[in-house]
Amino acid sequence: MSLIDLSKQVALGVDIGGTNTKFGIVNHRGEVLDKGNLKTDAYDKVEDFIDALYEHVQPLMEKHGAVRHFDGIGVGAPNANYYKGTIELAPNLPWKGVIPFAELMTAKFNLPCKVTNDANAAALGEMLFGAARGMKDFIMITLGTGVGSGIIANGNLIYGHDGFAGELGHTIVKPGGRKHWSTGSEGSLEAYASATGITITAKKMRAEFPESMLNQYPEDEINSKTVYECAMKEDPIAIEVFRYTGQKLGEALANFVMFSSPQAILLFGGVIKAGDFILKPAKLHMERNLLPIFRNKVKLVFSELDEADAAILGASALVWEK
Amino acid sequence: MSLIDLSKQVALGVDIGGTNTKFGIVNHRGEVLDKGNLKTDAYDKVEDFIDALYEHVQPLMEKHGAVRHFDGIGVGAPNANYYKGTIELAPNLPWKGVIPFAELMTAKFNLPCKVTNDANAAALGEMLFGAARGMKDFIMITLGTGVGSGIIANGNLIYGHDGFAGELGHTIVKPGGRKHWSTGSEGSLEAYASATGITITAKKMRAEFPESMLNQYPEDEINSKTVYECAMKEDPIAIEVFRYTGQKLGEALANFVMFSSPQAILLFGGVIKAGDFILKPAKLHMERNLLPIFRNKVKLVFSELDEADAAILGASALVWEK
Repeated sequence: MSLIDLSKQVALGVDIGGTNTKFGIVNHRGEVLDKGNLKTDAYDKVEDFIDALYEHVQPLMEKHGAVRHFDGIGVGAPNANYYKGTIELAPNLPWKGVIPFAELMTAKFNLPCKVTNDANAAALGEMLFGAARGMKDFIMITLGTGVGSGIIANGNLIYGHDGFAGELGHTIVKPGGRKHWSTGSEGSLEAYASATGITITAKKMRAEFPESMLNQYPEDEINSKTVYECAMKEDPIAIEVFRYTGQKLGEALANFVMFSSPQAILLFGGVIKAGDFILKPAKLHMERNLLPIFRNKVKLVFSELDEADAAILGASALVWEK
Repeated sequence: MSLIDLSKQVALGVDIGGTNTKFGIVNHRGEVLDKGNLKTDAYDKVEDFIDALYEHVQPLMEKHGAVRHFDGIGVGAPNANYYKGTIELAPNLPWKGVIPFAELMTAKFNLPCKVTNDANAAALGEMLFGAARGMKDFIMITLGTGVGSGIIANGNLIYGHDGFAGELGHTIVKPGGRKHWSTGSEGSLEAYASATGITITAKKMRAEFPESMLNQYPEDEINSKTVYECAMKEDPIAIEVFRYTGQKLGEALANFVMFSSPQAILLFGGVIKAGDFILKPAKLHMERNLLPIFRNKVKLVFSELDEADAAILGASALVWEK
């Protein structure tokens, strides 16, 4: 029979982070049928990592391969280049230089492999399986240790001429502002709206306001989680830390909206646990910096995907992308 | 014979500005076979304007229609919406409200009609006939009385979910900065890098520096043209006016590059007559605000199209857009 039974087709989704790598077998409905993980930073050589990944995945592939067809492998990784299939100069991964990752994966697994950066993968996942289902124009912002982004326009990811488009975390929101700990740029969105940025803001503000509850923690326990605890107890300084973060985020979002006029902006990642403490000021400052024709049109929403599965779903979505 | 002879197919391109409207008959090679113009602001009612346009165009259409086939009409106009075929709330046009312009044109000319905003039309013209031939990812910035933009990604114009994408002139480059004379926003690119913005900068700087040559002109003669004259005579204040303008432009361009990673940024419009006085600082400040992976990759170039024809070519390009 030549008809293809979609329910039998699956993809392997792999999400590579600096510490952990997660993988899963995903079907067309975005269901993770099986999953597992391994340590990224336990492998100094990328070939060893891929061998180990194969050892982990092989039993699952055999189990599912008996009744299902593997269409390919999708990989989300920092600094991954869709066009070239490479991972390039990723500061948080153990493997240095320019790595032909897709090629190495295909050689080992004998399956087609596509790679893209982790935020792009998350955007694809949202479009196929999450809060952006049916949307053709939206922007995904991941607020974690860093700030990543994936931009969908006309139903497609924007890769740019070289595959590196969508580095919105590094756009400047305050010229001459806070120096970024890694890039050295001044006043980037990531310097304010990442978990790292929030920690810096919190340490500065608690030093200025000795009465803040934030001063009850030792220096190394100040982070977005403890700021959230204090904000929930109505500490005005902790609330101000998030308000300031939300303002900077909102100002940046206004610029993004006037670029690609998305239907929605999806927020994702650890920082969104702060909820309305960040979302409300972000919305306010986005709207007030927009031209009237853009106002009250753009939905600002949190991701609907289960965080543990989202990255795997997003990576697997690469396999079925048009 | 059913084969289509491309050399016989033509489009009518119309560029509507606040004062003048230009039109031309254009072939597939981007040659303007015939052209003309009329006053936009002489017609208080849009129906009267379209009747007058028809009277002007009709003799040319008859002349060319004998041997050529008209595929359609493309219109570039401020605040024009590609999806809806409308011109909406355009502050510089005599016709108020939301005008179903494409529909009115089709009713009068009996030809399909597409509209888009003038900067989008210019971007299409550059892609088909100008400096961006063969490029799939570039950004067009028009620096005139205002600052407009058209963004091409994956070979297509980015329209956004509502048709209003690409308002880069209104993105904020200096939060809390110069108040825009019309929108009221603070620190937008247009407030600094438009001809109007340059005039404001020049008036401020000449007041601070009595020795500047700029003080030899009466107040109402200070504009980008007279600043250019003084800069050519090596007046350091006039040069500084352009340097500051270029810096703000370059800072904005860096943010745009990190959004869509274009192969080139094309600059167009009256302000580019300032040449290297603006281009060099723009390039410098663009590069220094980019992440290393984007540096020394993006060409910053002036439009190649003849300015008188560019708008007509761009509008006609709408007809043949995929």
